[in-house]
Amino acid sequence: MNGQLILHEDARSGNCYKIRLTAAHLDVPLTRRNYDIMAGETRTPEFLASVNANGRIPVLQIGDRFLPESNAACFWLADGSHLIPADRFARADMLRWMFWEQYNHEPSVATLRFWRAFVGEENLSEAQRGQLGAKQAGGEAALALMDEQLGRTAWLAGEAFSLADIALYAYTHVAGEGGFDLSTYPNVQRWVADVAGLPAHVLMAG
Amino acid sequence: MNGQLILHEDARSGNCYKIRLTAAHLDVPLTRRNYDIMAGETRTPEFLASVNANGRIPVLQIGDRFLPESNAACFWLADGSHLIPADRFARADMLRWMFWEQYNHEPSVATLRFWRAFVGEENLSEAQRGQLGAKQAGGEAALALMDEQLGRTAWLAGEAFSLADIALYAYTHVAGEGGFDLSTYPNVQRWVADVAGLPAHVLMAG
Repeated sequence: MNGQLILHEDARSGNCYKIRLTAAHLDVPLTRRNYDIMAGETRTPEFLASVNANGRIPVLQIGDRFLPESNAACFWLADGSHLIPADRFARADMLRWMFWEQYNHEPSVATLRFWRAFVGEENLSEAQRGQLGAKQAGGEAALALMDEQLGRTAWLAGEAFSLADIALYAYTHVAGEGGFDLSTYPNVQRWVADVAGLPAHVLMAG
Repeated sequence: MNGQLILHEDARSGNCYKIRLTAAHLDVPLTRRNYDIMAGETRTPEFLASVNANGRIPVLQIGDRFLPESNAACFWLADGSHLIPADRFARADMLRWMFWEQYNHEPSVATLRFWRAFVGEENLSEAQRGQLGAKQAGGEAALALMDEQLGRTAWLAGEAFSLADIALYAYTHVAGEGGFDLSTYPNVQRWVADVAGLPAHVLMAG
């Protein structure tokens, strides 16, 4: 009905994983096309002209249209499904966690994973090294905020598993690779196990 | 129907302005409660316990419930209205620009405005000074991407003015205070004038 769905991705990216996890929960097939971001494959003239002028993955291709931004792609896939709460406040509260993820969680938790597990600390620029402390503190604060919420509710938004849980799970469950110790956030640990235990779950390295 | 709507804000913040601009376009009255973020008024124990554990404004209070994150609050206000496209792809594309705003635009364009116009460059920390170049480049890239889109379409997402335009207008129209020259982005300049010319428009310092 919408033409073929193609996920332009780097399989190591949590942002790309969000989209695959959403599709798995909806039982929607995706064709996957892989790019190596470390080799600059999303900055080629062809990629910039035809897939995303912002030079980033993931991009969800829907027929001949291109949708960048992981959380927007998840929303497109899940629109009208059980992954988006029917209640108006819960729906906005789900988006609240997803916007918060992009502003408060991803720039700390995901960036430190990228720097430490992929780039290597010894290869960081002076300016990047100067941000390590602030990003560690920012990531701890983000995990603490999630832990506080997940001590009160089973899932992040509303009464049920939603896109908010998928968006936050992607980089949280591999936060250890960025230097965070999840055992200090017991409610987050419980929730990570709950997400991974859902019948439709797929692994990041799937 | 939803109880009184209270906007917890700092009137100088573009993120707070987004919510007032959305409410103006929907003709929805908001009660405004002001906090001075420079004086730490959103980090008091009372604020953290009752309004937002994340210590940030804006927060939209809906009766006795609290909704942080500017773009989520805009979505709650506009849910079901003409400010959110009825078409599935356009709706996701609107969210794409709003997520992009939080990740690619706000951390450069808004942060440089805050540092230069409110904190003062002479008061920045060493680590902040080390980021000035990257944030200037990031902001120019963000404005260039908007300029490219607005050279092809009247509004950012879909065929009509939407929350995407409100979310991006807030900090773009005052980008000059952060050291950006909008005259080098003629399509952005045209669009800034178009947004400001809409009948329901209200000013940031309103």
